[in-house]
Amino acid sequence: MAIQTFKANASLKDNVLVETEARGHKLIIDEPKNLGGSDKGMSPIEVVLAGLGACQSIVARLYADKFEINLKDFSVDVEGELDTDGFLGKSNARPGFSTIRYTYNIETDASEKNVDAFIKHVEQNCPVGDSLANEVNLIPGKIIIKNPVK
Amino acid sequence: MAIQTFKANASLKDNVLVETEARGHKLIIDEPKNLGGSDKGMSPIEVVLAGLGACQSIVARLYADKFEINLKDFSVDVEGELDTDGFLGKSNARPGFSTIRYTYNIETDASEKNVDAFIKHVEQNCPVGDSLANEVNLIPGKIIIKNPVK
Repeated sequence: MAIQTFKANASLKDNVLVETEARGHKLIIDEPKNLGGSDKGMSPIEVVLAGLGACQSIVARLYADKFEINLKDFSVDVEGELDTDGFLGKSNARPGFSTIRYTYNIETDASEKNVDAFIKHVEQNCPVGDSLANEVNLIPGKIIIKNPVK
Repeated sequence: MAIQTFKANASLKDNVLVETEARGHKLIIDEPKNLGGSDKGMSPIEVVLAGLGACQSIVARLYADKFEINLKDFSVDVEGELDTDGFLGKSNARPGFSTIRYTYNIETDASEKNVDAFIKHVEQNCPVGDSLANEVNLIPGKIIIKNPVK
């Protein structure tokens, strides 16, 4: 067991712009203008898709040698479908992604068979992919209120 | 139904550094030095935690008026537990998060009762939260190989 705790903070600023931070790395998250934001950064769901693609890329790097894949180039296009009526309360659609799919672009001289086995392993061992594909225990948050009416 | 497709691209660079992009917004994702990276940005799982906190923050902004919450300040600290032995193949632990918890810091003159109902609604309607708490259909990726051995 090597359970580690990973942390991030998000702080709401003007309108729907959010400043986030983890270990000193800062990231601005916003909504596009057609969803009421000022488009200063990726939206939260785009950030999750980018995190998924990055996670697969990193797992690919970690396991390439084991699968004898000479990884000259690796990129992934990630697409997620989401019914925006859900979180806007306009329908009973789930608020989150229904489906996520991807296309891998790999430059290598390895055989197709080896690449297939390699990608299967990457998909099964990607922390972000597993967190999305399977249930995570989200514990209801602790609320600290400043200046409440007693 | 207002199903939209959201997209991102991730491109593996030196070692485990990944350049990601969505709608022209760029984000560098990397691993910390103790996990073999050069620490040029958040790791993928930190990006997901930041995205979760940002998503809750934005949903809070969207619903504050409806719950009569005068939202003077809102931030959220997110923590996720993950057994790194899982994706490293050292144990049978799941590769992803086992548990995610958060603490909300809210400055408002609304009553505690209203804030509780508000936060419950935020948690139930956050797209990223729902995508993590419940299963998403991750479709095995299409693989495009350049220069394979035939």
